Amino acid sequence: MDKNLGAPLFDRVALIGIGLINSSLARIIRRDGLAREITACARTRRTLDKVKELGLADSVTTDPAVAVAKADLVVLGTPLGAYREVTENMASGLEPGCIVTDVGSVKACLERDVAPFLPEGVHLVPGHPIAGTEHSGPEAGFAELFEGRWCVLTPAQGTDGVAVDRVAELWRRCGMTVQMMDGAHHDKVLAITSHVPHLIAYTIVGTATDLEGDLRDEVVKFSAGGFRDFTRIAGSDPTMWRDVFLTNREAVLEMLGRFSEDLVALRRAIRRSEGQLLYDVFDRTREIRRGVIDAGQHIPPKGPKDNGD
Amino acid sequence: MDKNLGAPLFDRVALIGIGLINSSLARIIRRDGLAREITACARTRRTLDKVKELGLADSVTTDPAVAVAKADLVVLGTPLGAYREVTENMASGLEPGCIVTDVGSVKACLERDVAPFLPEGVHLVPGHPIAGTEHSGPEAGFAELFEGRWCVLTPAQGTDGVAVDRVAELWRRCGMTVQMMDGAHHDKVLAITSHVPHLIAYTIVGTATDLEGDLRDEVVKFSAGGFRDFTRIAGSDPTMWRDVFLTNREAVLEMLGRFSEDLVALRRAIRRSEGQLLYDVFDRTREIRRGVIDAGQHIPPKGPKDNGD
Repeated sequence: MDKNLGAPLFDRVALIGIGLINSSLARIIRRDGLAREITACARTRRTLDKVKELGLADSVTTDPAVAVAKADLVVLGTPLGAYREVTENMASGLEPGCIVTDVGSVKACLERDVAPFLPEGVHLVPGHPIAGTEHSGPEAGFAELFEGRWCVLTPAQGTDGVAVDRVAELWRRCGMTVQMMDGAHHDKVLAITSHVPHLIAYTIVGTATDLEGDLRDEVVKFSAGGFRDFTRIAGSDPTMWRDVFLTNREAVLEMLGRFSEDLVALRRAIRRSEGQLLYDVFDRTREIRRGVIDAGQHIPPKGPKDNGD
Repeated sequence: MDKNLGAPLFDRVALIGIGLINSSLARIIRRDGLAREITACARTRRTLDKVKELGLADSVTTDPAVAVAKADLVVLGTPLGAYREVTENMASGLEPGCIVTDVGSVKACLERDVAPFLPEGVHLVPGHPIAGTEHSGPEAGFAELFEGRWCVLTPAQGTDGVAVDRVAELWRRCGMTVQMMDGAHHDKVLAITSHVPHLIAYTIVGTATDLEGDLRDEVVKFSAGGFRDFTRIAGSDPTMWRDVFLTNREAVLEMLGRFSEDLVALRRAIRRSEGQLLYDVFDRTREIRRGVIDAGQHIPPKGPKDNGD
């Protein structure tokens, strides 16, 4: 791969769906000249107007087939539930040799929802840049989002090596470290590191929402004791997350089962006043925190919207 | 109350236990001259050496009765489980007119663990400055910790009004807004905003700790998808949190019951692929996030250790 920042990696990149991730990617492609041309595709004119206003693309369209015409890279960035329909809609525009990748949080599902609908000669390289904030939409993106984070690629056996390398190089240019992984394994890892934590955050914020009036107002007021972090996570895009849970159902239910068992055990320890058991669990979890810090993954991204909404 | 920053509010302040909260308070008292003298009391010489090294107190001792002698304000900052013993140990040194307050996360228990052991003429004003980080120990404190946060005071009916005012003024000088509340009500609010979130974070990090070897390493590596925030919360002091759960048992179990029911409902929705139900819950929780932002409670404290451990 050409390491020269001046040389474009791709000729024409089509971004299908342009939220936090794809708009951040667009900013980097523009800033570093990683492609000669960017086309953005979204469902609504309102989003596309925003994209034009922000100068994130050379052209915009609501038609996926138009967007992908002559593209050598297509990046799916819609909610997972739209993958199949979008792929069917863009298929007629795809040219042989084109690479199709994505940025979704679930990977095994692409074999079912995307691969069967791609024309012969198109390379599928499923990808997941593990980075994000609770904000969504093209205005939420920023070029530093991916720096120092991991990107997982889950190409099926037999995928064209050059296609895989080109996608890997794109994410490296965004500041990420790339790791190959089996799709099903990725989905298990993400179930525990991302999907279940989000479900739990949504749950407890929901529990608080259902409290009696007075108590609910006070929950907001006194949220600095830990609840604040959960409200941030639970402020994430509802459509995207609905689709994550529907798509990664098995792995999420499996990890949720383990979590629930562990919670029952701690609940019993509280009920029985078993202080030593509580202490041991609380002490042991510090190890993982140290691991996260050692891996350099403890610093949240500093986005333009970090101090507001 | 005298608003002149130069005039001390107290003559001699005794800090019993000197972790994150009391050491932050010491830094402010010193910086703004809020007391003529600070005495720090801790169980171990090591902590007291650190206190001396950091210049946080004029004198140090391991003996609570010595620490509180001639003090007009005593601030309990030990784990909740030590309150009774510390109070019994310091009682002989307390002088009539002295105010005893604390910084613990549970308040109703002071009526049981502290009030009965105080000599006649000593004023008890339970307090909870709702602020914190996951770091502990005297070196973790910083003077800005309390700025813009809430402090709850839960004095029993009939408590001396001047004593309550003096404690309130101290926290106002630290940048806090003070609110009076019934102790049992405080404990309910904190169960949902702080205690249950911490228990959940400890649980899921524990669940991850129990994963098979490979998977566990990857959990640390790919923690940027949400898990990171939980490891931060679960890195908090295990003794302090053990005592919170043992002390606020009833309210925690009550809120945990509600949370568990709600989690079961979401789990069932995932199993049954009920997308609309998931969407509705995820959409509704954004309201609370907006409330937290409107209340100005969404920005985490910027401590000296925020980028490391």
